[in-house]
Amino acid sequence: MNYRMLGYLLGIIMLIEAALLTLPAAVALVCREPIYPFLLTMGILIALAFPLARKKPKDRRIYPKEGFAAVASAWLFMSLLGALPFVFSGAIPSYIDALFETASGFTTTGATILTDIESLPKGILFWRSLTHWIGGMGVLVFMLAIMPSEGGESMHLLRAEVTGPTKDKLVPKMRQSAMILYGIYVFLTVLETVLLLCTGMPLFDAVTNAFSTAGTGGFSVKNASIAAYASPAAEWIIAVFMLLFGVNFNLYFLILLRRFGKVFRNEELRTYLLLTLGVTAVITLNTVKSAESVGDAVRAAFFQVTSIFSTTGFATVDYEVWPMLSQSLLWLLLLFGACAGSTTGGLKLSRVLILVKNNFRELRHLLHPRSVNVVRINGEAIPESTLRSVTNYLAIYLSILTASTVLLSIGETPLLTNLTATMTCLNNVGPGFELIGPSESFAFFAPLAKLWLTLVMIVGRLEIMPLLIILSPSVWRRRR
Amino acid sequence: MNYRMLGYLLGIIMLIEAALLTLPAAVALVCREPIYPFLLTMGILIALAFPLARKKPKDRRIYPKEGFAAVASAWLFMSLLGALPFVFSGAIPSYIDALFETASGFTTTGATILTDIESLPKGILFWRSLTHWIGGMGVLVFMLAIMPSEGGESMHLLRAEVTGPTKDKLVPKMRQSAMILYGIYVFLTVLETVLLLCTGMPLFDAVTNAFSTAGTGGFSVKNASIAAYASPAAEWIIAVFMLLFGVNFNLYFLILLRRFGKVFRNEELRTYLLLTLGVTAVITLNTVKSAESVGDAVRAAFFQVTSIFSTTGFATVDYEVWPMLSQSLLWLLLLFGACAGSTTGGLKLSRVLILVKNNFRELRHLLHPRSVNVVRINGEAIPESTLRSVTNYLAIYLSILTASTVLLSIGETPLLTNLTATMTCLNNVGPGFELIGPSESFAFFAPLAKLWLTLVMIVGRLEIMPLLIILSPSVWRRRR
Repeated sequence: MNYRMLGYLLGIIMLIEAALLTLPAAVALVCREPIYPFLLTMGILIALAFPLARKKPKDRRIYPKEGFAAVASAWLFMSLLGALPFVFSGAIPSYIDALFETASGFTTTGATILTDIESLPKGILFWRSLTHWIGGMGVLVFMLAIMPSEGGESMHLLRAEVTGPTKDKLVPKMRQSAMILYGIYVFLTVLETVLLLCTGMPLFDAVTNAFSTAGTGGFSVKNASIAAYASPAAEWIIAVFMLLFGVNFNLYFLILLRRFGKVFRNEELRTYLLLTLGVTAVITLNTVKSAESVGDAVRAAFFQVTSIFSTTGFATVDYEVWPMLSQSLLWLLLLFGACAGSTTGGLKLSRVLILVKNNFRELRHLLHPRSVNVVRINGEAIPESTLRSVTNYLAIYLSILTASTVLLSIGETPLLTNLTATMTCLNNVGPGFELIGPSESFAFFAPLAKLWLTLVMIVGRLEIMPLLIILSPSVWRRRR
Repeated sequence: MNYRMLGYLLGIIMLIEAALLTLPAAVALVCREPIYPFLLTMGILIALAFPLARKKPKDRRIYPKEGFAAVASAWLFMSLLGALPFVFSGAIPSYIDALFETASGFTTTGATILTDIESLPKGILFWRSLTHWIGGMGVLVFMLAIMPSEGGESMHLLRAEVTGPTKDKLVPKMRQSAMILYGIYVFLTVLETVLLLCTGMPLFDAVTNAFSTAGTGGFSVKNASIAAYASPAAEWIIAVFMLLFGVNFNLYFLILLRRFGKVFRNEELRTYLLLTLGVTAVITLNTVKSAESVGDAVRAAFFQVTSIFSTTGFATVDYEVWPMLSQSLLWLLLLFGACAGSTTGGLKLSRVLILVKNNFRELRHLLHPRSVNVVRINGEAIPESTLRSVTNYLAIYLSILTASTVLLSIGETPLLTNLTATMTCLNNVGPGFELIGPSESFAFFAPLAKLWLTLVMIVGRLEIMPLLIILSPSVWRRRR
């Protein structure tokens, strides 16, 4: 382990977090709220970061273990320190609750322990929504975008933070890749803000809701979530943007390059759109009887489908009163998650596609043991090593899901609550079923259960491996 | 596809079923109940089987697809025709209900649609329990044991019916392997019957309960299941035998050969015993407060652990009133299932062991991409092909679990019921949670849902592949 380099990277991350805190501090200043919670946190961040980031280490090599360790500890420290403004301002007096809320923000889960959101100061609410926006694309990707390139080895950082079964740079230079990703991200966020302003939504609400949508997080500044605006136009806009932020960002880059053919032939995108439309249609038919009009039913179905599929977790209706078929389809989308390389959580559709095709291959193999079978996605053969890592990912995902469901039951919460709480945290969705339905909060969990779910959210955001790997003692051995 | 050979095998299976029906017919005769339901079914079976089994086909080659097709269709026909006595006797007037009950019997699931079991005639109850005993070890294995050996190719039949990730013959000759398996099976069943008689249990009850235990099925002849006897001794005996029938039968063969060292070093057995003792201890501590005495708590915990772990499904208490930790541990054991090569259902512990070890290998591989890692069980390296088939098995298992949960929700039954109904049928356990808890029945499901769950039980008993493979048109092409 290259400790100097790890410390240096952590220092940079903390400085970035301190810089980002100026934004909610500015909001607090404008709204005449106390700004010391932010200044105090920034002071602590800078005090911790200064000795670490002061000097660039000579040995700047980043191997896989440095990459995993840097990403895992960056996310842990960002959450541990990002929770402080909530505590200092008195908005969330318990540190464990504040940590849960912050990790839920950065990981774009959107699960909350708050029961009265509107009573919080504006600056704090702004920070809460900003964590979604930072976490969505990833803070290390941000760091790569603003820092001078360190050469090809920083690939190990991008690899650990960008989601999906395979990770590609868009362009040969790492820094440019990261800048392109953030450029698209900023553009879409600004576009959504402007459109929401056109519906008559106040500026503060438009910006924070755009942050939440962009990160596919789900925190809202209203107790009733998006339903509070009672604006069909705003619901449509947010639903469409949830859909857009669930698309692999590499495809937007291809659109910029005018390579439309490659975009339309993308199997993951086609599956994503087909499933969105299909499930929306089924849920509309399933719920139209109890809706006020067909238009209402379509809008509510489309909004809930894009919200759960993109793992955002915004709610305009209580889907737990919907017929069981609608609920179980949502549960299925919650499990899948949207496209790899987007800001969404979950297994990711490309993994699901690979798994399904691999299942058929296994059946063909049993029937014709000597025939050669390949799994193809977008016309290209998937290497055996990727197939193996995807099936193993599923096995590890399930081990965590099962172990966590059993662990949570120590706190005497019911089975379905524990199962869907783990699923919703591991997939970074937010709401679940039963005690953690769309209109409920995670407040009732015991402190230890909250800490555990905090960890599960970070594990889910980083797609499991980084956090498991840093548990291995061999990671922490000094480099010879 | 060698249709002549497939037909011939099906004919033999139907003749065996007809022969087995003489046993419940004899019980009915002794109890002065009508025997025509059995005679009529036997007549139909013989009429169907005669043209098929009359002449041995010249081409008796069995390739993988013939093996899968024979096993899959044998189990379907056995269930379809074995349901007739229930209908003819009027015990279960609806054919779909009777089919569900029969498939639940043969697959040793033990899920029932009956609400008043004790009102049924003795002959019918005997047939119901006998299906467990036949299905436990497998009717094709039985056929192999009694028929003159057809050469090594009949391995494809054994392979499709015996459970677990890898299948070995005990001895080079297939017929002898099958005879040894059945010998051990009969011996243990008789031993349990004798011991139960010693506790004062009536002969009829002792035999049928021994059948249910041996097949790890769970059908009982009493409405209150084993609790009806109010006999701690009987509960202990049945619990110990549920544990014994969850052990890989190959190990009993090794014990006969006095190769004890190999038995004690078996990792699956050690995991099985450790988990049984560990979970029993945790549940005892978890439930002792509400029990009448420590002895009662230990007995209830051990009985429920062995019952769920061995996928039998007998109940002496309503575990849905237990604390959540106890419930979720039972849910975990339900998912695992006991040892491969036993009469139990579920994923099988050896698969779970391989999956867990493979998970750690994946993490090591990510950290040290160039190092060579092997997964070892019992000190032997597991081939990559087995690892792949186990992880793929998990993926296919989960696909079925997810699809079935969504499908069942069309009938408006709740999410947890659908999920655990599928799990309990796919793992051949019997009871589940919520609406299908240990004291409930499957009667409330819609007819189509019952048909679907019937299929799920057979899919689970045959470890998924045979039934999926026969859906492929290429299986049914005539051999060139």
